[in-house]
Amino acid sequence: MKRAEQATAEGILYTDEYQLTMAQLYYRMGLHEKKAQFEYFFRSYPDYGSHRAGYCINAGLEWLLDWMQEARFRDEDIDYLRSQTGRTGKPLFDDDFLDWLRRYGTFEGITMRAIPEGRVVHPNVPLVVIQGPLAMAQILETPLLNHLNYPILVATKAARIRESGRGRLLLEFGLRRAQERAALAGARAALIGGADFTSNVGISHVLGYPPKGTHAHSMVQVFMALGGGELEAFRAYAEVYPDDCLLLVDTVNTLESGLPNAIKVFEELRRKGHEPVGIRLDSGDLAHLSIQAAKMLDEAGFPNTVIVLSNQLDELVIWEIITQIEKEAPRYGVDPDRLINRLVYGVGTRLITSQGASALDGVYKLVAVQDGGQWTPAIKVSETPEKTINPGYKHVWRLYDRRGKATADLLSLEDEDPRTMETVLLHHPIEHTTYRILRRDEIAEIEPLLVDVLEEGRLVYDLPSIEEMRRVREVDLERLDPGVRRLINPHVYHVSLTERLWDLKQDLIRSLKQRGRR
Amino acid sequence: MKRAEQATAEGILYTDEYQLTMAQLYYRMGLHEKKAQFEYFFRSYPDYGSHRAGYCINAGLEWLLDWMQEARFRDEDIDYLRSQTGRTGKPLFDDDFLDWLRRYGTFEGITMRAIPEGRVVHPNVPLVVIQGPLAMAQILETPLLNHLNYPILVATKAARIRESGRGRLLLEFGLRRAQERAALAGARAALIGGADFTSNVGISHVLGYPPKGTHAHSMVQVFMALGGGELEAFRAYAEVYPDDCLLLVDTVNTLESGLPNAIKVFEELRRKGHEPVGIRLDSGDLAHLSIQAAKMLDEAGFPNTVIVLSNQLDELVIWEIITQIEKEAPRYGVDPDRLINRLVYGVGTRLITSQGASALDGVYKLVAVQDGGQWTPAIKVSETPEKTINPGYKHVWRLYDRRGKATADLLSLEDEDPRTMETVLLHHPIEHTTYRILRRDEIAEIEPLLVDVLEEGRLVYDLPSIEEMRRVREVDLERLDPGVRRLINPHVYHVSLTERLWDLKQDLIRSLKQRGRR
Repeated sequence: MKRAEQATAEGILYTDEYQLTMAQLYYRMGLHEKKAQFEYFFRSYPDYGSHRAGYCINAGLEWLLDWMQEARFRDEDIDYLRSQTGRTGKPLFDDDFLDWLRRYGTFEGITMRAIPEGRVVHPNVPLVVIQGPLAMAQILETPLLNHLNYPILVATKAARIRESGRGRLLLEFGLRRAQERAALAGARAALIGGADFTSNVGISHVLGYPPKGTHAHSMVQVFMALGGGELEAFRAYAEVYPDDCLLLVDTVNTLESGLPNAIKVFEELRRKGHEPVGIRLDSGDLAHLSIQAAKMLDEAGFPNTVIVLSNQLDELVIWEIITQIEKEAPRYGVDPDRLINRLVYGVGTRLITSQGASALDGVYKLVAVQDGGQWTPAIKVSETPEKTINPGYKHVWRLYDRRGKATADLLSLEDEDPRTMETVLLHHPIEHTTYRILRRDEIAEIEPLLVDVLEEGRLVYDLPSIEEMRRVREVDLERLDPGVRRLINPHVYHVSLTERLWDLKQDLIRSLKQRGRR
Repeated sequence: MKRAEQATAEGILYTDEYQLTMAQLYYRMGLHEKKAQFEYFFRSYPDYGSHRAGYCINAGLEWLLDWMQEARFRDEDIDYLRSQTGRTGKPLFDDDFLDWLRRYGTFEGITMRAIPEGRVVHPNVPLVVIQGPLAMAQILETPLLNHLNYPILVATKAARIRESGRGRLLLEFGLRRAQERAALAGARAALIGGADFTSNVGISHVLGYPPKGTHAHSMVQVFMALGGGELEAFRAYAEVYPDDCLLLVDTVNTLESGLPNAIKVFEELRRKGHEPVGIRLDSGDLAHLSIQAAKMLDEAGFPNTVIVLSNQLDELVIWEIITQIEKEAPRYGVDPDRLINRLVYGVGTRLITSQGASALDGVYKLVAVQDGGQWTPAIKVSETPEKTINPGYKHVWRLYDRRGKATADLLSLEDEDPRTMETVLLHHPIEHTTYRILRRDEIAEIEPLLVDVLEEGRLVYDLPSIEEMRRVREVDLERLDPGVRRLINPHVYHVSLTERLWDLKQDLIRSLKQRGRR
């Protein structure tokens, strides 16, 4: 795509056609500037097939805001819409609507509350609440979903991979296998969720992180094709990068060629006064090879070199590697804990595409419409009860127990504040007879989760740095119950409704079913 | 991300750090302008877990070329590289190398042969062959992989979905669930592979396709929240779009409310002289509901309306829906073939993210280096024999049998032309004793697959339109054996080597193993 085309494709027309046909309908009916309230939430944790997440990490907000700030209907966008025709060849969009779009079709009327990036989040909790004129809030649906669904998915996967790697250094390597431009939002989300660095140069520059990387098999191949060998290639690398020498040892044969050659070069380096960084293993049995590599490096006097592992890693593969090292390393006289602590993980495909769960099921649902100055709650029922939305203007609270662990997220009506309640009733969102009652003294803290982000288009929120988001993520993970953090079969975290919200939901379902019969 | 940042992140730095450290190493060793040859190929068909593809559809080339044409090291990119430091705090990149990059760091030295977009392609066949100065051909690796892997994945999925839907209209709806900006390349690839239209407005504009869409649940919800009902919402839609009236009937209850209301509005429309387009079903048992909807629409006198199906569709779900319709429709007095022919498929998540196989395992491998004017073949062996590359400067041929069906893709050395051979030997790429010999009269046609695209950076290829790519895809699919087209457990298509290429590969493996021992 050419740059000029990209500006068109990624501008205000980065939405679905039906958002525009609906906007015109609202305009025609005089509803386009009626205040509406939409909520963004996801319905279920990513399910990777053999395992599923017990929490998500929120991400994507800042880039959504960047998009909203720049998106507007340019003359050429309006001209394009004017050229669209319906089945009979008549224009699909009328001039008066297009004039309105040209003049007022921005997000300057949008008020937004949101949960900050980096926070632990759960299904059915509004992560973003939009208030604004119906037509523009409707057009926002698709780009908002597009900007949030994917980053949450990747931040979540990164957090899981970091957990399985016991917090050891995690490098994001996914640009080549990413779903094209998703590589950029993906690298950013990976950093928020748990990666320490990325190999992606451009996004590192933009985000202010140093990019990481060493060399590929092709470098060794070049030397071999020209009549040299792996040793010459390693020597060349050590010569150019004497203080940053990390060698990929599996181009020919890891144990017979790569490691002996690397050690030879490391010894030469040391004689010249430089300390090598380490090696990378990119194929074969990574657990077995890392034990052998550790043994050889230790015996050669390089116990402080790192061992970078890559090749189709994800949280389960890393977990298995560590488990195998714990079992097998002692047999070879290698201390498993020392070895695990010198490992670094380079994770590509399975992180950047969230393999196994390639999409988050985030949705953007109308929850209220302003009518005569009052917010009228809106609902959509579904034959699947889980898909019936929680209606109305709401607040979101996180309750911590006396251990300091988060025990539930609570959705309340606009005028409710559980901090002032003596006892808090937490109603199951679907099951009629399931609820918990907590006394105030059983609750250590009640924290509101939504912060004000936009007030009628104006940014009223201090955007945190990626480093701040990473700290928020660490704190939130520490405050999760270990059962919820579990990689496989995690404990289900409670997302509950206050009694009044529960009652409102039931009332609306009943009245809708009666109306449906009319 | 802000626009200025985007230009940085998507420019020449849209690559991995190690490509730049290797480029500097080549510069330092005087190898940076040595001519090298790299090949792009994928190793295996997408495997969706319960099924896998038997062919792929090639896509992505044109946008890669667009990227290559615009990417160059700007002053600010060089400044950024100059600011990077190694472990000891010293600059990672030296001024002489950066000066060279600034002056010569473009893709103007690159010569490219490639298989055109829209063509059926198979594993281990070079889809793109790059010749050029080693340093820049190396830097190109990551962006090339990024631009090609994902489009092939989506074009392939779209072709499969189209096959399962028996060629009926297929709409791409995935923007909201796509992996962020991948939505754009994804929509384009879906059109190449089999979708007829997309709901994505911006990319439709850029590609010259009319975007498609009607209305969402939220439109009905708005009317209900304001005291009206589904019928009022439908009437409003019909009033604004009398000739393009397609109604979503599952907001309240499909059979009890949505369809009766839609039929009422359709009758009103017809009285005013307009014919309705149809309805959309987005939840519930789509097979059962479409039978009931067809019955109700037929009985009401609207047998020519379409029925759009959406909600987590993919090739298997569509296949199951059609199978169920064939079995059940007659029981309700509905003709199954007529019903199947009025169906339209709206496919979102599972197409745009290629759910189940979210990444193609495409790689970019050094196959030859020019040394003293001669191309010296390069190889990389692997303990997994499938991963040992096919070395050398090669050509690619497709052989058609006397039925006109493609029977194999054949990789040959540069100076071989199977069109001049009396018999053609097709050697299995890995197994020593497996080969076929075809007499020339058993082969109806031998077609070279690679076309010249770039000559030292200059475009020498007429870029085809999306429409032309779609025609190419249709012709290629027709020329595939039905067994290879099968959705589940497809027949394995042969990708073979000529005898001389096979011998070269064995020689190189042997000599490499001997060298590895030294």
